[in-house]
Amino acid sequence: MVPSRKNVVLVDGVILNGPATDVKAGEKFVEDACRLIMEEVVLKATDINEKVCEWRPPEELKRLLDLELRDAGEPHHRLLQRCQDVIRYSVKTNHPRFFNQLYAGLDYYSLVARFMTEALNPSVYTYEVSPVFLLVEEAVLKKMIEFIGWKEGDGIFNPGGSVSNMYAMNLARYKYCPDIKEKGLSGLPRLILFTSAECHYSMKKSASFLGIGTENVCFVETDGRGKMIPEELEKRVQKAKKEGAAPFLVCATSGTTVLGAFDPLDEIADICERHGLWLHVDASWGGSALMSRKHRRLLQGIHRADSVAWNPHKMLMAGIQCCAFLVKDKSDLLKRCYSANASYLFQQDKFYDVSYDTGDKSIQCSRRPDAFKFWLAWKALGTLGLEERVNRALALSRYLVEEIKKREGFKLLMEPEYANICFWYIPPSLRQIEEGPEFWAKLHLVAPAIKERMMKKGSLMLGYQPHQGKVNFFRQVVISPQVSREDMDFLLDEIDLLGKDM
Amino acid sequence: MVPSRKNVVLVDGVILNGPATDVKAGEKFVEDACRLIMEEVVLKATDINEKVCEWRPPEELKRLLDLELRDAGEPHHRLLQRCQDVIRYSVKTNHPRFFNQLYAGLDYYSLVARFMTEALNPSVYTYEVSPVFLLVEEAVLKKMIEFIGWKEGDGIFNPGGSVSNMYAMNLARYKYCPDIKEKGLSGLPRLILFTSAECHYSMKKSASFLGIGTENVCFVETDGRGKMIPEELEKRVQKAKKEGAAPFLVCATSGTTVLGAFDPLDEIADICERHGLWLHVDASWGGSALMSRKHRRLLQGIHRADSVAWNPHKMLMAGIQCCAFLVKDKSDLLKRCYSANASYLFQQDKFYDVSYDTGDKSIQCSRRPDAFKFWLAWKALGTLGLEERVNRALALSRYLVEEIKKREGFKLLMEPEYANICFWYIPPSLRQIEEGPEFWAKLHLVAPAIKERMMKKGSLMLGYQPHQGKVNFFRQVVISPQVSREDMDFLLDEIDLLGKDM
Repeated sequence: MVPSRKNVVLVDGVILNGPATDVKAGEKFVEDACRLIMEEVVLKATDINEKVCEWRPPEELKRLLDLELRDAGEPHHRLLQRCQDVIRYSVKTNHPRFFNQLYAGLDYYSLVARFMTEALNPSVYTYEVSPVFLLVEEAVLKKMIEFIGWKEGDGIFNPGGSVSNMYAMNLARYKYCPDIKEKGLSGLPRLILFTSAECHYSMKKSASFLGIGTENVCFVETDGRGKMIPEELEKRVQKAKKEGAAPFLVCATSGTTVLGAFDPLDEIADICERHGLWLHVDASWGGSALMSRKHRRLLQGIHRADSVAWNPHKMLMAGIQCCAFLVKDKSDLLKRCYSANASYLFQQDKFYDVSYDTGDKSIQCSRRPDAFKFWLAWKALGTLGLEERVNRALALSRYLVEEIKKREGFKLLMEPEYANICFWYIPPSLRQIEEGPEFWAKLHLVAPAIKERMMKKGSLMLGYQPHQGKVNFFRQVVISPQVSREDMDFLLDEIDLLGKDM
Repeated sequence: MVPSRKNVVLVDGVILNGPATDVKAGEKFVEDACRLIMEEVVLKATDINEKVCEWRPPEELKRLLDLELRDAGEPHHRLLQRCQDVIRYSVKTNHPRFFNQLYAGLDYYSLVARFMTEALNPSVYTYEVSPVFLLVEEAVLKKMIEFIGWKEGDGIFNPGGSVSNMYAMNLARYKYCPDIKEKGLSGLPRLILFTSAECHYSMKKSASFLGIGTENVCFVETDGRGKMIPEELEKRVQKAKKEGAAPFLVCATSGTTVLGAFDPLDEIADICERHGLWLHVDASWGGSALMSRKHRRLLQGIHRADSVAWNPHKMLMAGIQCCAFLVKDKSDLLKRCYSANASYLFQQDKFYDVSYDTGDKSIQCSRRPDAFKFWLAWKALGTLGLEERVNRALALSRYLVEEIKKREGFKLLMEPEYANICFWYIPPSLRQIEEGPEFWAKLHLVAPAIKERMMKKGSLMLGYQPHQGKVNFFRQVVISPQVSREDMDFLLDEIDLLGKDM
């Protein structure tokens, strides 16, 4: 709308009549970009003839992308070219041969849900602003609680398993001593918490962030498969008590990051009950096994936990991020612990039932509607479809394990419990050397060298790490239903191809 | 790919040959859904003839949406219907008459960037997995640092201004006493921090979460416009010291949530320097004024801050969430404070410069590429285009203020400094009553009643709250370039229409 000269309203030199954006051009840009995204990302996501990554070193990539921000804007055709470049040089995490992290693949339903929420741009704190997404979150939490095996419970979606673990640590502390919310930790006895030596690194980050201190995270010994040893936990709790520290929390892990190990929850729960300790289960990775009647025994005893972290964005492919923190308590502990009662947001004189304004349970103010993408995928696939995905990923893992055993030059680290298959590739030159210090020192260099080659070729992405005294080994993670046994065979062939001259 | 019977690989009853998803059907679903999103959200976003919201009470909405998750999945046509329903009953936060929060409007460029990142599904922690998005974040942080007026600095995008404030509080504490990371707060003197009485509620949440305690947040008095009074701060710091507490942080606010007030940064910085206190500026809302040469004087002195929170998802419309935490220190303080050195993610024997693996500066593990949406919008509009948006929003605010002054039945709370215009609507029945207890008691009921009517009609969304002893008033927030003086006029006309029988 162009105002006629005489009706122009001018304030501080700005014309205020009519919108200031070229709506048609903007809409056209979105349409063009959507076509590009469809062609370059969605349609190519399942094409194994595409590269997983188009590797460039940082300095070269900076030059290629021209990242600098300037005074003048750019025309649409140049922006579209930029979008194309960004896609080109980004890692294709939904490629069937991306196995580098605990997420992978493309779920069409959660993708659609994500496009919707980006377009609607909601923030989930009050019913008046996010009616649909608040109710969706409630429904999803309710169902997840059912799968944990609690009769009722509470929870909140939040930006990551690490943050879920922080929620748990703070909530357990609040339960232990509600005064800490107002008074802080100063003058209190030394709080101490227990987790396994294989736990996620967020335990340390959380303890530091929450003012507990990393030295007050007691790392309990694990067995050869990476599972917490309950007898060691018992000993450590008793020792801490003797030393005058105040134990308040045990964090068990269901699906450790590197080995995919599951702590024995029932035995740990017994110890927690005996000592009156909060039991949190970090099932960020392994929680999805609860969807499978065949595999849920991995989490036997999880219903005895006080809280659980579970990330549907990993095995269930809901898209980063989709992370639930779940609590057994139904007496509003979560809200009492976290509320700040902001009067500009959580007015009590609203015309609807303000118990639907759940934002005050969060450490965030603005919060994304992450539950929705899981909800839409669940609606699309049904519980049975989700179960089938988990079963398939674990069957494929099993297949890979058996192939590794058959092949010369591959050595399994241990029998996996879940979808993490850890193994060494032993190149020809090392196959005749005895497994002594020289062998291990040389083997330690193999995985990084192969990783470099695979990145530069772009054929595959797979993680490696040293771990608990073991030299660098590969960790293969199987998740996506787009992956098949052919990809497992390819993985082993390709590593052999890349390393056979070593 | 359907395997012939004899080549079938079967493990645990699962066929492992070929992908298990119907790729064509999935792609078709995404295409259909994109069309729906384009038609129902993007194209309608600027149409003032559409409703802002289609209000339904919670119980009714639950019935309409059928939220329950079941064993069986649903066909695509039903899912598309669900998507349509979700859009229908969601609040249109990009509607030109949505003024309810500190975000609004539709930026076509950031929307495209968001679609891209959802499709690419990256997690930003290592260069190997997120080469483009890590470099983009670096470029955007560098430019924001330039606008703050620091020569150099560091920073991280994170999920919200509240979380940015937590980062600041923990970092200031670490700087004050690095041992806290390992030892925790137990046995330390009582840490205390200072902020204004008008600060965001995340200050309390942060103090509680970090183990400092809400009682150790000292709320400094503000003047009549909501600005911290430096003399009061000085007194409070001295008093705390006398009482044996340990002051470590002052948090000033640039753009308070309700009134849009800006604390006097230069005078506060003087006090911080004198007492050796970390100065954090919560410019989550007001930081965007830095883009305007005309209005950046509101943040005069911000270059003296040690850290800044600034959310481009608010005034600059980068989409929820896009929040930067910025630090003046360049000695790796942020990394030393937050690092946990996870060996499975931050391997030191990678083949590229691992200083690009910035994820260990974060409290999160998976992290979204939020900087990218701001980057693409900045590329599209240029610094000058962003400046123009800020100038226009503030000129429109000015226009609205003058209109309020002219109109009978409208009463300005105070002259605004920024884009928050706070006012009362005084319905006809109250216009003759003297401004005594009865008047205020009755006026308190007006805004909630009008809010109910506007929600049910769907014509407009605008927030209200009581605040610092003042009865319920409206807070109008002006952001989007799609908004014009016609919408400001409409706003006042509509409130008058909705309340004229009161």
